[in-house]
Amino acid sequence: MDFFQCMSLSKARELIVESLAGIAANSEIVHLSDALGRVVATDITAKEDLPPFSRSTVDGFAVRSSDTFGSNESSPALFMIIGEVVMGKESMIELQPGQAVAIPTGGMLPAGADAVVMLEYTEQHDASALMVLKMVAPGENVVTKGDDIEAGAIIVEQGQKLAAQHIGALAACGWAHIPVVNRVKVAILSTGDELVDIHEPVQCGQIRNVNSYALGAMLAEIGCVVKLMGIVKDSFEEFCHALSAAVSTCQLVVISGGSSVGIRDYASTAINALGAPGVLIHGIAVKPGKPTIFGIAGSVPVFGLPGHPVAAITICEQLVKVAARILMGQKRSLDTFGIPAYLTRNLPSVPGRDDFINVRLSKQEGKYTATPILGKSGLISTMSEADGMIHIPTDKSGLYHGEIVEVLFTKKTE
Amino acid sequence: MDFFQCMSLSKARELIVESLAGIAANSEIVHLSDALGRVVATDITAKEDLPPFSRSTVDGFAVRSSDTFGSNESSPALFMIIGEVVMGKESMIELQPGQAVAIPTGGMLPAGADAVVMLEYTEQHDASALMVLKMVAPGENVVTKGDDIEAGAIIVEQGQKLAAQHIGALAACGWAHIPVVNRVKVAILSTGDELVDIHEPVQCGQIRNVNSYALGAMLAEIGCVVKLMGIVKDSFEEFCHALSAAVSTCQLVVISGGSSVGIRDYASTAINALGAPGVLIHGIAVKPGKPTIFGIAGSVPVFGLPGHPVAAITICEQLVKVAARILMGQKRSLDTFGIPAYLTRNLPSVPGRDDFINVRLSKQEGKYTATPILGKSGLISTMSEADGMIHIPTDKSGLYHGEIVEVLFTKKTE
Repeated sequence: MDFFQCMSLSKARELIVESLAGIAANSEIVHLSDALGRVVATDITAKEDLPPFSRSTVDGFAVRSSDTFGSNESSPALFMIIGEVVMGKESMIELQPGQAVAIPTGGMLPAGADAVVMLEYTEQHDASALMVLKMVAPGENVVTKGDDIEAGAIIVEQGQKLAAQHIGALAACGWAHIPVVNRVKVAILSTGDELVDIHEPVQCGQIRNVNSYALGAMLAEIGCVVKLMGIVKDSFEEFCHALSAAVSTCQLVVISGGSSVGIRDYASTAINALGAPGVLIHGIAVKPGKPTIFGIAGSVPVFGLPGHPVAAITICEQLVKVAARILMGQKRSLDTFGIPAYLTRNLPSVPGRDDFINVRLSKQEGKYTATPILGKSGLISTMSEADGMIHIPTDKSGLYHGEIVEVLFTKKTE
Repeated sequence: MDFFQCMSLSKARELIVESLAGIAANSEIVHLSDALGRVVATDITAKEDLPPFSRSTVDGFAVRSSDTFGSNESSPALFMIIGEVVMGKESMIELQPGQAVAIPTGGMLPAGADAVVMLEYTEQHDASALMVLKMVAPGENVVTKGDDIEAGAIIVEQGQKLAAQHIGALAACGWAHIPVVNRVKVAILSTGDELVDIHEPVQCGQIRNVNSYALGAMLAEIGCVVKLMGIVKDSFEEFCHALSAAVSTCQLVVISGGSSVGIRDYASTAINALGAPGVLIHGIAVKPGKPTIFGIAGSVPVFGLPGHPVAAITICEQLVKVAARILMGQKRSLDTFGIPAYLTRNLPSVPGRDDFINVRLSKQEGKYTATPILGKSGLISTMSEADGMIHIPTDKSGLYHGEIVEVLFTKKTE
């Protein structure tokens, strides 16, 4: 099967998005201090105005701004200090013309005042006489009630993954318990008679199970609960048994190996056996990653990824993470923003397929360069040395030295 | 105190880096499946060659490449098939001239063979007679023992924070237990009589404790273990008591509020009281974030951040995270890579200070634009709506509409 008979990456993505549309995620309530990285299940609105009252943004004196008009250093305005705002307390004073009240940063503006004069622009000669050396405009040095967020306004939209800044905004509005979409439980199976686990001695002809750990880490990184289901030997019976166990306990299943069009191609048959619609994609025009399978066994999406770690990781990045985010209700991801960089060498490709190449990013005098990490196809070292990936789209026959490419970060936690 | 009397951001960073140099982090051993996001404590070298034997990268036939020289579709080379390589088993066959052995992708190359002919370029007429329709070069379709990573080579350097790809490389080399630097335990205290926690009803004049949650989330995001120590009232005694408890149980302390040069400036005095060297920085030329304190109480670094959430978050991003990463042994961070974007409006600044402005990033036809989120200084909504921040360096008096700026991501988990 050559690349032209395979489904394009963009078509595969569309199909995955469509086919997951009907699979509803449940939600739960978590405390705000456990909500980082979770996806909110509903629009969350402000229950209170923020700030809940008009506040001073400086240390100084609350005044009626009109009383300061015309004042300057040579002709200061005179005020009578009638009291002081105490932090955290309601101010009971009502300001009359010519009066001023001492106020700390964050203090509640007393009734009658509409601005605050900074301490630096005042002179105080005794306990009650204040000279103001500079005019203030109405609202100056004040944040008005509801200026930041009005009661009823949406603080965080449904589908937003919560970053620290959202946590801050939710705290500010008094949200202690947050409705979030459940994390997705992902089963990861590696298949192949040649595989041994990292704890076992390796015999001649055997290689280590890389994919369980690498794919598990990638999906844990975006918020999935990962269930490593170990190594499945190349037997159709064992494979079906393991897949069936995975489908009945998890919301997403990722199998690596067993998907190439060779003698050991059990995955399609086994997925189809578990219920309609079954296999929807078999083979995609992507390098590396051609022998990729996607299907839905009853209501559980199943990916069959290539056994080769670099291909498996590439397709996990391009497709599995897309599916996992949909299942977790996430609507937007900053992952789609890449860094434009100058390519340091020509990269040949073949029209009709999407290529992904590992690159190292460097920055000199504010300019970014992307250096492809070459070497034989699919060495694991090319991935661990890389900062990100570049994409050669399906309509291009390559990229030129000096061309500007976009580097997509694939290492979230570095 | 104006900005010119404050320490510059770059000087403050240098001083923090220097003063933490002597504070050693302990390390521990974790299982590979728990190692994501941890920082490795030593260089980690390959114990085995990767691959551990020469492997085929395709389904086909292992041959001596010289036997194929000159062959093509009209004049195929003839081979005798003498057996088959079984996945995961050592191949005991030794290939003689004119012989071929069937081999699956990932199979071990038999002795005597130096290349693999892809199945597509062969024709097989009976069990033993094979025609090869295309020449192969020595090493073609083969990954040689040690080609990917040689035994003894460094897989991951000391100070590297482990991403999924590193986890893959470590699995490939049989590393099940990884020496990593201990996570840093950070105490977070918010001070201020006006603060109420998110669980409490808010009274007039009071505002919510935002910083504990926002700063806690930011530091949890980069791998710290966060201990929220609640709200401390504006009393010197209470403050000293809380700070002393924090210093004795954590490796890093972050206090917010109580640091402005006003009536309630307890932080410096309290830090100095806990042991030399005490306060090293008091006031930095950064907007927002001027009233920042940094000191070392005995051997525990303590930050005093502004009470204002936007300022506190900005300084946490610019300085506290730098310190936390040093304490966790991390040597490199992709955080320093920003996305170049066109600025959509003029931004005034003042030479002599570093400014940080929240922006929303958008992408149209491959071009990025950065739109400042303005509004009154320091609204929390400006942070939750932003994708990142831009930096106006200390030597600039502003940035121009159309200028290319670098957007630093501040939301790691979106």
